[in-house]
Amino acid sequence: MILVVDVGNTRIKAAVFEDATLFEIFVFSKIELQKNIENILKKFEKITDLIVSSVGDVEKQSFLAYNNVLNVHFLSHEDPFPFLNRYATPKTLGIDRMVLAAGATLQFPNQNRLVIDAGTCVTYDFIDEENNYLGGAIAPGLRLRYEALHNFTAKLPLLSLESPKDFIGTSTSESIHSGVVNGFVYEIDGFIDEYKARYSNFIIILTGGDTDFLAKRLKNTIFANSNFLLESLNQTFQYKIKND
Amino acid sequence: MILVVDVGNTRIKAAVFEDATLFEIFVFSKIELQKNIENILKKFEKITDLIVSSVGDVEKQSFLAYNNVLNVHFLSHEDPFPFLNRYATPKTLGIDRMVLAAGATLQFPNQNRLVIDAGTCVTYDFIDEENNYLGGAIAPGLRLRYEALHNFTAKLPLLSLESPKDFIGTSTSESIHSGVVNGFVYEIDGFIDEYKARYSNFIIILTGGDTDFLAKRLKNTIFANSNFLLESLNQTFQYKIKND
Repeated sequence: MILVVDVGNTRIKAAVFEDATLFEIFVFSKIELQKNIENILKKFEKITDLIVSSVGDVEKQSFLAYNNVLNVHFLSHEDPFPFLNRYATPKTLGIDRMVLAAGATLQFPNQNRLVIDAGTCVTYDFIDEENNYLGGAIAPGLRLRYEALHNFTAKLPLLSLESPKDFIGTSTSESIHSGVVNGFVYEIDGFIDEYKARYSNFIIILTGGDTDFLAKRLKNTIFANSNFLLESLNQTFQYKIKND
Repeated sequence: MILVVDVGNTRIKAAVFEDATLFEIFVFSKIELQKNIENILKKFEKITDLIVSSVGDVEKQSFLAYNNVLNVHFLSHEDPFPFLNRYATPKTLGIDRMVLAAGATLQFPNQNRLVIDAGTCVTYDFIDEENNYLGGAIAPGLRLRYEALHNFTAKLPLLSLESPKDFIGTSTSESIHSGVVNGFVYEIDGFIDEYKARYSNFIIILTGGDTDFLAKRLKNTIFANSNFLLESLNQTFQYKIKND
């Protein structure tokens, strides 16, 4: 069994796999890391490998502490990936985006793939049908937009994610919900339309914390899977074992 | 002559008018307020009225200091406006948005008007052809998105506004420029498309600090005028004199 851990900008997600089978998912904050890992290891005694993908600021030492009982592996740009990285600055490509690209490449062969990960940030990653990773885009995610409106203005309140009633907001709260949510949805559909105009034979994968909220709001047809990064972590590790 | 002052979230814009004629525009930071006002009053000795619209956190006292030499007036919800405010929370509608709506109503009679102000935030304000102000939306502006990406993540750099080369960013910088700029443009065009699908007989006014950068990037036809808020401030005051 393997334990995969995704350290994001705001939270940590972990999952236990045996081959391709996902047993359980855990979501927790950075300060609860140690407690959660220990509980998971107690519950799944057959875990032999701990695979970490991190774009957050958790210390490596927090994981290396388990080096005596587990094989601990931090995924990095040195690992084998199933695509050709055409990024101009491959070393700065977030490891989470590489893992998503690997999962898309392995799970959806012989087609153009756009992976949209809507979390703290929204990232777009494109791998063409010949397995070239070409790049994408990064923009603030839904909650970041709410926070930015409050933190950088004198008078706007901090609101929680809520579905706008209409694109014309009839109060300050409704104006913010419309600007953030509708704006975000128009933006995602706008990117998808640009890709579709240039490429055919296309799959669009939507993942990240806001998957369920967004999936039903987009006009484009997408494959929605909020666990795609965790599944891709497992697949990337399986691919590494076969190709190292 | 009148001096109109727009206190925004990040900077102050001022302009000198005589009737409908704009003489000069001044842009400065909050700490330079006093020095600039004094220079303007020296240069234009015929100024009799100082009109202030503020959504920022500048003290009223900074302007009231000129009360002995000028008529100082802070525009507020109590002033007469040329539209019917249908907002559910009229007291929380930013005075800048009311001034924009007034300017659109007076300058473009008998048509549906959407005003898009792209500054620190982007605001959308809609006044129908029967002069009902219905509301709109608020979202983070271009620079706010760059700042949010840097401030709320562990590893993303703070970049300045730059035109993306393509919608597929091939480096971390290009990914951010694409996500912020292309995303913002798709978002604005998405909002415009929604309004156009519901209303005809339509004018779209684009204003704010990012007017020139955005105007050539939108697919929709718009009326671009980066001084629209200042002109609207003058018109709102002229309207007030006639209707008080």
